[in-house]
Amino acid sequence: MARLDQVITNIVDVFMEYADDEGKKGQLNKEELKKVLEKEIQSPELKGNINADDVEEAMKLLDKNHDGEINFREFCRCVCDLAKCYYQKKKGKGCKKSKGKEQEDEED
Amino acid sequence: MARLDQVITNIVDVFMEYADDEGKKGQLNKEELKKVLEKEIQSPELKGNINADDVEEAMKLLDKNHDGEINFREFCRCVCDLAKCYYQKKKGKGCKKSKGKEQEDEED
Repeated sequence: MARLDQVITNIVDVFMEYADDEGKKGQLNKEELKKVLEKEIQSPELKGNINADDVEEAMKLLDKNHDGEINFREFCRCVCDLAKCYYQKKKGKGCKKSKGKEQEDEED
Repeated sequence: MARLDQVITNIVDVFMEYADDEGKKGQLNKEELKKVLEKEIQSPELKGNINADDVEEAMKLLDKNHDGEINFREFCRCVCDLAKCYYQKKKGKGCKKSKGKEQEDEED
């Protein structure tokens, strides 16, 4: 399996597994998002970027209609944010924490 | 290695490998993007979503400053689009082709 195959199938498999676990199907609630981040991220280098506060903050940023749930598109955005963070680190830059849409848009 | 570790490191590794290959560092030009999609996606199920025209179209959509290059953030968006497509398929829905920002925003 090529690397992007793996990326794409893993994102989808992880989301479906946790989103359809309990609660609303096709949506992650805060507990489910927490579980995903706890269980599916193990490398200390990546783990260092996440803590419980971030889950709260991520939910607030992502959950636009305030129903306490995030959909697949929003989950992808969350994974991308972590990837951007890791990319910045690899390039020797610090990881800027996303504070909202404006910063995301102006960021390179 | 947990699944999201793999997702994040693979996205970053693939991008860095191809972006820093030749041309501008830290940016993918059209040829490089084409190479990524050709070599790093092998599953017929995913491959079916991509053709040469899509690379042209993707470049146009992603390359906002018209310099023929896409950066890491834009690459992530491209991977997310493919993941969304695969997710829709898995749920038994057809894959809507993203035509631009408006559609992406209204999509669930």
